[in-house]
Amino acid sequence: MNDQLQSVERWGRFELVLHGLSTGNPFQEVQLSAKFQYKNKVVEPDGFYDGEGRYRIRFMPGQIGRWRYETRSNRPELDGITGEFDCVEPSSGNHGPVRVQNKYYFAYEDGTRYLPFGTTCYHWTHLGNEELEEHTLQTLANSPFNKVRMCLLPTRDMKPPALAFAGTCPEDTDKTRFNPDFFAHLERRIEDLQQLGIEADLILYHPYDKGHWGFDNMDEETDRFYLRYVIARLAAYRNVWWSLSNEYDFNKFKTVAEWDQLIQYVQRYDPYQHLRSIHNGTKMYKTSTLYDFTKPWITHQSIQHWDAELTSVWRETAPKPIVIDEISYEGNSSRRWGNISGEEMTHRFWEGFSRGGFVAHGESFIDRETRAWISFGGKIYGECMERIAFLRRIIEEAPEDWIASAGEGQYKLMYFGRHQHAYKMVELGKDTEFRIEIIDCWNMTITPVEGIYRGITKVKLPGRPYMALRLTRV
Amino acid sequence: MNDQLQSVERWGRFELVLHGLSTGNPFQEVQLSAKFQYKNKVVEPDGFYDGEGRYRIRFMPGQIGRWRYETRSNRPELDGITGEFDCVEPSSGNHGPVRVQNKYYFAYEDGTRYLPFGTTCYHWTHLGNEELEEHTLQTLANSPFNKVRMCLLPTRDMKPPALAFAGTCPEDTDKTRFNPDFFAHLERRIEDLQQLGIEADLILYHPYDKGHWGFDNMDEETDRFYLRYVIARLAAYRNVWWSLSNEYDFNKFKTVAEWDQLIQYVQRYDPYQHLRSIHNGTKMYKTSTLYDFTKPWITHQSIQHWDAELTSVWRETAPKPIVIDEISYEGNSSRRWGNISGEEMTHRFWEGFSRGGFVAHGESFIDRETRAWISFGGKIYGECMERIAFLRRIIEEAPEDWIASAGEGQYKLMYFGRHQHAYKMVELGKDTEFRIEIIDCWNMTITPVEGIYRGITKVKLPGRPYMALRLTRV
Repeated sequence: MNDQLQSVERWGRFELVLHGLSTGNPFQEVQLSAKFQYKNKVVEPDGFYDGEGRYRIRFMPGQIGRWRYETRSNRPELDGITGEFDCVEPSSGNHGPVRVQNKYYFAYEDGTRYLPFGTTCYHWTHLGNEELEEHTLQTLANSPFNKVRMCLLPTRDMKPPALAFAGTCPEDTDKTRFNPDFFAHLERRIEDLQQLGIEADLILYHPYDKGHWGFDNMDEETDRFYLRYVIARLAAYRNVWWSLSNEYDFNKFKTVAEWDQLIQYVQRYDPYQHLRSIHNGTKMYKTSTLYDFTKPWITHQSIQHWDAELTSVWRETAPKPIVIDEISYEGNSSRRWGNISGEEMTHRFWEGFSRGGFVAHGESFIDRETRAWISFGGKIYGECMERIAFLRRIIEEAPEDWIASAGEGQYKLMYFGRHQHAYKMVELGKDTEFRIEIIDCWNMTITPVEGIYRGITKVKLPGRPYMALRLTRV
Repeated sequence: MNDQLQSVERWGRFELVLHGLSTGNPFQEVQLSAKFQYKNKVVEPDGFYDGEGRYRIRFMPGQIGRWRYETRSNRPELDGITGEFDCVEPSSGNHGPVRVQNKYYFAYEDGTRYLPFGTTCYHWTHLGNEELEEHTLQTLANSPFNKVRMCLLPTRDMKPPALAFAGTCPEDTDKTRFNPDFFAHLERRIEDLQQLGIEADLILYHPYDKGHWGFDNMDEETDRFYLRYVIARLAAYRNVWWSLSNEYDFNKFKTVAEWDQLIQYVQRYDPYQHLRSIHNGTKMYKTSTLYDFTKPWITHQSIQHWDAELTSVWRETAPKPIVIDEISYEGNSSRRWGNISGEEMTHRFWEGFSRGGFVAHGESFIDRETRAWISFGGKIYGECMERIAFLRRIIEEAPEDWIASAGEGQYKLMYFGRHQHAYKMVELGKDTEFRIEIIDCWNMTITPVEGIYRGITKVKLPGRPYMALRLTRV
């Protein structure tokens, strides 16, 4: 009789709950994992202690069929437990985790194209303000954004009601234990994002601690203890990405070699090989002093730079997707990074996307009802968001590799930025016919040029900045 | 009796006209110069053949007093002619030639500050269109511009009624003779500019010939023959600068070493040591591949680059004035260099000047009554010109070395470009008092902040781009 057998959709989450020891420090003392097997495919995720004598093992099955499992533990009551479940077809909207595809691009595991249009809300889950979090989710639901960068650890300025580690203030923080309630809340929000089709680009470290909590300066053993717990809890969520650190180079306690070891540690323990990168913070001046993204444990280039034109350079530097996760924020902050206009932000998006990169959004208005979207979410006030939505529709209509298609004479997105041509000479193939559309990137209009064209063609333009041409082979 | 003795104002022009041989090729065959002496100061400019048996020797006296001269020639009728004239106080508006002053800046020889606000009309004197030339002068008279870049040689596309050399088309051009009428016309226009207080930044070569006239590919002897004639005719005009070439690196016939020799040749034969530079054309991508302006024969950095932020880098690279002679043009041309908006042009001016450089203007609208100011002059249609006039007033009110004054805590011009701060924290000296003014660079307003400030001061800003602060010590 199999009618009571649990079924889990492909890339959904199977969860085994066990009960055991609650004395001592189970976070450290209890080892737990399970071997999940389907035919000759074996995956062995770690379990984790969830407080109050409760242990969980989470698993994201990647193949449809009957999976069997058997636990392993250094505690006899948790060891050797077996069972099985059926992995079934994914529901609509579940395309699996995002993978790199075709060098510079992304797709979900089921092959569906994924075009990152990211935004950033570093600590939107950290204030203990449910109303604000719901507001943030509502804002995201009505936005073009499908990736959010968010931190696991608090900054020095925050007094969060709960931490990833046990304790609530620097004095009583216990780095040998975790706070299951913090994670349960975070997991709920990661699931909320998943429901909205949004990837959670989880930032595992950041440099804004500066010794206050001490999370930026833990020893190697504690770092690994932390990362392994995070992976055990969160890796089974298909919409998770690992961003090892934000602005890693502003952290004075860790070397690049140490970061490399931590990234490789995540690579080793993540059973699903979620996307992995690390994000720079250096004030770059024209030339890039970035992390070497050709390193094999890095899946994509998570860049901070304010000049999207360099996208063309980075494509040469490393054959991996380019995600400019910070390009300045729209807003009116007094800080150097948070005060460009919506027009400028829209311009930078077009510059990056038209060169085959992905640019992410951020906003930092400091005198509005909810303050600083990049920090705590809330409402988005800026002018660029609807233009980004317009750009997203255009990129969705583009060929999968729109840069290669340009080379092959099939499709071309030409963006003119601040140039305001009266006309533009466009080189079309002699023997191929093209449709031409004039795009006003700021006013969000697409105006077809009447007729079909070939060869060198003069296209009249309105002499305004922020125009683009879309050339599509008939 | 000295009452008939000619008097010439200081930095004015003394001209001796002689008559001699008109057969053969006097341009090549007749050597002529004169030694001018005042006390122990001796200057010996070349004379030149002016056609129809007329020879001229021009001299710009730099000292007040009685000058004596004596000609030298290989022709007996031109040799050993003596005379004298009185050099008198300059008239108002005559401050002498422009010199480098205080490393990064300029002043006229009498010490009056000169702040270059340049523009470009490459061939405004070449069309034989007197009406258009008068129109151009009228436009300049009503502009903030006090320097014009202009060419001596035509491009391949032009059919000018007269050339510097004899002949009118490539087939009949004679590079062993010059056209005195061409020069007489040019000289009149240089004097017109002088009357308007405008420096003539004369471009001696350019690469837009490409073998059509062959002026870009002359042998060394012809190059020297040309340069020496140009110097003999034009060096006595105090408002002349020498720009050896426009976009020298687009000329495939000459090496940098050959350019260096030609610049040194000009240095050797120019009795007055007018400003000398050479202008690059390379399509630079973020890093600069410029001529090495530290070379001793170069007086200032005549740069083409579209990123005025690099001014700060170039100040480090060479301790010479930075004149960004091409930074793109306002307009709607289809070419890469001629289609930025007035807003963008204004922005680039502020970026360069606030960093201690000098930015020059150009305009290229292609569908207006007069076409392409940069090529032939006429009318200026763009929106940046009045903003440049506004900026000029602000720079004129600044200390002579406004960058050093910032370091000394006396004065500071802070430009925020595309940033739109709600406020800005400004560090003023603890023990010094400052006035603060908010400048809207686009709308051309200066709004004083009420009160006097010291120490770290929060300045409320309107949250718009293109704002600046002027901090002035009380």
